[in-house]
Amino acid sequence: MSALLDGIRSIVGPTGLIIGPQELAPYATDWRKRYLGKPLAVVRPASTAEVAQVVRACLDARTAIVPQGGNTGLCGAATPDASGTQIVLNLSRMNRVREVDARNNTMTAEAGCVLAKLQGAAEEAGRLFPLSLAAEGSCEIGGNLSTNAGGTAVLRYGNARELVLGLEVVLPSGEVWEGLRGLRKDNTGYDLKQLFIGAEGTLGVITAAVLKLFPLPKSHATAVVALQSPEKALALLERVLEACGERLTGFELFSDFCLSLVLKHFSETAAPFPHRFPHYVLMELSDTQSGEGIRALIESMLEAALEEKNILDAAVAQSETQSRTFWSLREFISEAQAHEGSNIKHDVSIPISRISEFIATTDAELERAHRGVRMVTFGHLGDGNLHYNVSAPEGVVPDVFVKNTAAINRLVHDSVARFGGSISAEHGLGQLKREEIRRYKSSLELELMRKIKRTVDPHGIMNPGKVL
Amino acid sequence: MSALLDGIRSIVGPTGLIIGPQELAPYATDWRKRYLGKPLAVVRPASTAEVAQVVRACLDARTAIVPQGGNTGLCGAATPDASGTQIVLNLSRMNRVREVDARNNTMTAEAGCVLAKLQGAAEEAGRLFPLSLAAEGSCEIGGNLSTNAGGTAVLRYGNARELVLGLEVVLPSGEVWEGLRGLRKDNTGYDLKQLFIGAEGTLGVITAAVLKLFPLPKSHATAVVALQSPEKALALLERVLEACGERLTGFELFSDFCLSLVLKHFSETAAPFPHRFPHYVLMELSDTQSGEGIRALIESMLEAALEEKNILDAAVAQSETQSRTFWSLREFISEAQAHEGSNIKHDVSIPISRISEFIATTDAELERAHRGVRMVTFGHLGDGNLHYNVSAPEGVVPDVFVKNTAAINRLVHDSVARFGGSISAEHGLGQLKREEIRRYKSSLELELMRKIKRTVDPHGIMNPGKVL
Repeated sequence: MSALLDGIRSIVGPTGLIIGPQELAPYATDWRKRYLGKPLAVVRPASTAEVAQVVRACLDARTAIVPQGGNTGLCGAATPDASGTQIVLNLSRMNRVREVDARNNTMTAEAGCVLAKLQGAAEEAGRLFPLSLAAEGSCEIGGNLSTNAGGTAVLRYGNARELVLGLEVVLPSGEVWEGLRGLRKDNTGYDLKQLFIGAEGTLGVITAAVLKLFPLPKSHATAVVALQSPEKALALLERVLEACGERLTGFELFSDFCLSLVLKHFSETAAPFPHRFPHYVLMELSDTQSGEGIRALIESMLEAALEEKNILDAAVAQSETQSRTFWSLREFISEAQAHEGSNIKHDVSIPISRISEFIATTDAELERAHRGVRMVTFGHLGDGNLHYNVSAPEGVVPDVFVKNTAAINRLVHDSVARFGGSISAEHGLGQLKREEIRRYKSSLELELMRKIKRTVDPHGIMNPGKVL
Repeated sequence: MSALLDGIRSIVGPTGLIIGPQELAPYATDWRKRYLGKPLAVVRPASTAEVAQVVRACLDARTAIVPQGGNTGLCGAATPDASGTQIVLNLSRMNRVREVDARNNTMTAEAGCVLAKLQGAAEEAGRLFPLSLAAEGSCEIGGNLSTNAGGTAVLRYGNARELVLGLEVVLPSGEVWEGLRGLRKDNTGYDLKQLFIGAEGTLGVITAAVLKLFPLPKSHATAVVALQSPEKALALLERVLEACGERLTGFELFSDFCLSLVLKHFSETAAPFPHRFPHYVLMELSDTQSGEGIRALIESMLEAALEEKNILDAAVAQSETQSRTFWSLREFISEAQAHEGSNIKHDVSIPISRISEFIATTDAELERAHRGVRMVTFGHLGDGNLHYNVSAPEGVVPDVFVKNTAAINRLVHDSVARFGGSISAEHGLGQLKREEIRRYKSSLELELMRKIKRTVDPHGIMNPGKVL
């Protein structure tokens, strides 16, 4: 074993160091199995001090570090390269909730805390930690912050970035920046925490964070709405926001093709209406006031929209169970499309006012270029975020179809750029879009990012080959 | 006239260049007249292109630039030094609202737009731009963003930082970073805009911004509540948040001494209750739903709190006029204390859960060290932000008392630090707290800030002597 690994073992102990090929395997690939790396070792420190010492040892040895949390990322940011020289720094053992301060509406948690555990810790204190996403049972907060995770509650509570008041970060020098402030207001210089949030581990290792908590909603109302078009969905969104403001906590769009995939692959699901419609919105309101007010509100809004023929049908959940059933129609889409075989995925955002035009224009361009493609279009419409996925025409084998990936990415991303959008709304860049982004960001912006990288990480040991 | 000024005149034209000593005067000092500078010239460009050319000319001449907006800052960040060599770059002529996109809930505005004008532009589109502060009739959005302004709506809508989706910035190189994105989600690398927000003009010149808009509230309810102590105010805050969530848009604390100053200096004001009490909270709820629901809600909460003896009295405004009257009791405090002569001001924040203990402890320390001082304690309790001002004991001339400024600052700020707080919650550092902050921030953090400064502004031309 090398001097570096000897040194690391003396820092983290034998349980903190994994070097056997068998044991390394799960850490060496990503969630979607797009990337297969070969780490020199996986290091699992148990404290910030250990992280700092490990980083220092890697710096001295000029060995690259790949920070990793729950390893549920979708762009390969937490997967090492195949050189056999990179250390995976897995934070999962740092999983303590250090403090819940209900009156300050904050919680201080270590990077390796699983998101669902944090949701639970908040709820025990009578508070809401609103970050919520499909992987919440296994993703970890350090990864959520490093990728500025989105999810289903962004509309109301913001991205992961907006949920952070303070950070503790091990810098590429091995020094610890103690920025664990629990303050709503602090104007004493540059807001350094912003650098590390969303940096995908390229500027340092987030080891702990002070997170914002919110009042726990006491009533919910969920509805599925049938609509003619995304344009009608936008009109409904505008109207609901004007009437309900922050009660609106979810506004998810999906096409009938998405629904058909869910119904096909999940036998326990059922269509929400006796007839089928072109598009659906799953809408959720919540309120800190208990009682039936919120359901009356959603019903009166939807009745008015029906009368004005802005929507085609609507079903309001009559129970918690029915609400979960409605949500599953949306949540099963990702898995349902996987059952169909590969497709070509895009995680894009567009100014909300232009989404409808974006979909129409881009759908048409795709149809012209690749006749018969079927669009798996769904997403967080309230955030302007679409999962705009392109699947094979009827009868074409998916694995053959995905050979069009480069061409279709180009077409979709060029369209996104024309509409003033982003080619990565909530999944980050990682390895997956590192090259692609160079086409869409100005060289000035890329160079500013590179300068910051060089300033904070002059030896380039933090997650090289990701983002930049 | 120097070659530099000749060059600048050729860029901005004669109306854009001010060099006469008389005309320079208003730009050479700050709002509180703490600092008197001597600019080489004041330059007033009319477009981003002009700003870029002026910055380039100043870079070539290695001449320092002091960006300035409405010049209402409280820490001297927009005031040039006395060397006669610095250029004040006043953005007031860049005052166009470039776009209001109601459906995207965004507005694109140039740096020189007066805040009140932006509030109006949003309202015309049926939206709310929530940033609101005492200087809103003359402060400008570029300054608001450069200082990450706070104000009275932070509790509900966040600081200025949270209200920005995109920025256009002229970098110290004279290049223009076009980051005017109108997206709620964009995870494509480092979030560069965060660098410039709150940087007080030390990293570049913000020339325009994409700002978030919100649904316009349709009902409001305002109350003044009398309480025994800040501790009781915190208990009320917790309860109101749990019950009302985001309906709570204001929660302002002020002591009876603050009220007495307002009543003394503003003859049109009246005490809110027949009796006087130790402390008061001004509380505002708002809702996108119209009607009387919001008033019923505030009344039922306050009745319950009265019954449980958590509060001593409460008055709910019965009209818009009475609501304004209540607000004036809070808003006149700053001016009322000015009429009393100088006092020693602190703009601090503390974790909300510890504010009551902070006030009790620090009040006692001050009384021990400076017998008889009278505390003008008020502020945005919901944000943990106190304007914790110390005025002279009865009978002591204010101008004599303020000789204790250094000692009292030290006492208060050391206490703030012990409570995990910030010595500048919403006013920034500017010149005023540039030295002071070195005592409270780690050398690691200060050095990281300096490294970023050197990276972005290698020749140090942007607002030298401020922040760092």
